[in-house]
Amino acid sequence: MRYSVFAGGKRVRPILCLETARIFDSDVTAALHPACAMEMIHTYSLIHDDLPALDNDDLRRGKPTCHKKFGEAIAILAGDALLTLAFETIGATPVAASRSVAMVTVVAGAAGTVNGMVGGQVADLEAEGKSIGPEMLEYIHRSKTAALIRASVAAGALCAGASVEDVARMRRFGESIGWLFQVTDDILDVEESSAALGKTAGKDLAQQKATYPAIHGLPRSHEIANELASKAIAELEPYGEKASRLREIAEYLVTRRA
Amino acid sequence: MRYSVFAGGKRVRPILCLETARIFDSDVTAALHPACAMEMIHTYSLIHDDLPALDNDDLRRGKPTCHKKFGEAIAILAGDALLTLAFETIGATPVAASRSVAMVTVVAGAAGTVNGMVGGQVADLEAEGKSIGPEMLEYIHRSKTAALIRASVAAGALCAGASVEDVARMRRFGESIGWLFQVTDDILDVEESSAALGKTAGKDLAQQKATYPAIHGLPRSHEIANELASKAIAELEPYGEKASRLREIAEYLVTRRA
Repeated sequence: MRYSVFAGGKRVRPILCLETARIFDSDVTAALHPACAMEMIHTYSLIHDDLPALDNDDLRRGKPTCHKKFGEAIAILAGDALLTLAFETIGATPVAASRSVAMVTVVAGAAGTVNGMVGGQVADLEAEGKSIGPEMLEYIHRSKTAALIRASVAAGALCAGASVEDVARMRRFGESIGWLFQVTDDILDVEESSAALGKTAGKDLAQQKATYPAIHGLPRSHEIANELASKAIAELEPYGEKASRLREIAEYLVTRRA
Repeated sequence: MRYSVFAGGKRVRPILCLETARIFDSDVTAALHPACAMEMIHTYSLIHDDLPALDNDDLRRGKPTCHKKFGEAIAILAGDALLTLAFETIGATPVAASRSVAMVTVVAGAAGTVNGMVGGQVADLEAEGKSIGPEMLEYIHRSKTAALIRASVAAGALCAGASVEDVARMRRFGESIGWLFQVTDDILDVEESSAALGKTAGKDLAQQKATYPAIHGLPRSHEIANELASKAIAELEPYGEKASRLREIAEYLVTRRA
């Protein structure tokens, strides 16, 4: 668990959670709980995704993947325990119980089936080697990646006591940057080297994965990424200076090279 | 997910949850939430436990195991999604938010590392083929099995609004029958056939697993089971007739043949 959580990474989800909480409450101590929980869930999903039965990846963040280091059994259990610890961590957030329960509901929904992360992974698995349309690609990306990023933003807003209207607005912001995140991930898999990414590049093509460059081509994929960034930034308008870091993150996501 | 959850099974954890709730509140509708959540967590643990990297079992409840039926990737994801859905289900319990949060905390603690289920599974894995003492065996059994059974009872009590004192008493009841459950599981693996159990018998010995019969012998294992049943039943004394079904369950667990 420690090996994989502390292997580095951009910490996009916890940063989004904390920066969203900061818009609605200057004290973000409590939001460290959902912030850490989101990174635990993200890490669990990477550990399980890297397993031989799924993506069969040997390299993650420039280091051997969890199962390469500790064996498959421990990797499966480490992922399970991180997912469990995420909910324990949210449950222990020092805020009103109603906010904790709202976070549990939002995060579990985003991590689960139907429109959540596991649902997206299953659709992704079933799409391998098949020809899928842009609608299915959108469903996969929104569920597999955007859902958890949207939940990170929503959990930060809920934790800080944001109004129903603000939570809804921040969810739309999270949805756009989450989707953007996966589009740029697809682009980077084509444009960058394994060394730059700290993981195996070119795997999507090798595994015949459905990606934005594969379906829309690289130029249109870049356009889509820019449109999503603009849409995300527009949602932040009411918050002015308080949202300046979130604005920077949206700009970073569209220009990132790793 | 459906295939494994609805493959049958004794439903010990949900029944314990509901019967505990019934002691403190005649309406157990809300307790269906934690009751179902406990069965989901139990089922996820079986799906992952049966994987080739762990116990490598082909048969569960008389049917092919999840990965035998759907492949390893789907089995890993089905387990992940059931664990996630369990917390979503607890979060949606129609009771005061403070009770929901208490259930999330108790259940996540019991399903996780340290003194929880995954911690017990890791210790169990590490003990394979090694000679371990009765203390380690006790730790493994209490964490791997008893923790979740104790949490099923505690969640039922918390859901129904039991007092702190009653929750503590019911946790002790749950601890005793949970431990008892694993001791009889060990005994049945030696004494019964695969047909009677609906899973592969004699696997503990074949895999050199640490079990009560292996360490204490069969006669002493039966004695321990009886002592735990008596201890569990003694905790129910204050509840009289209201606890009659829980008493029957404790008696059933010590005499069960499957």
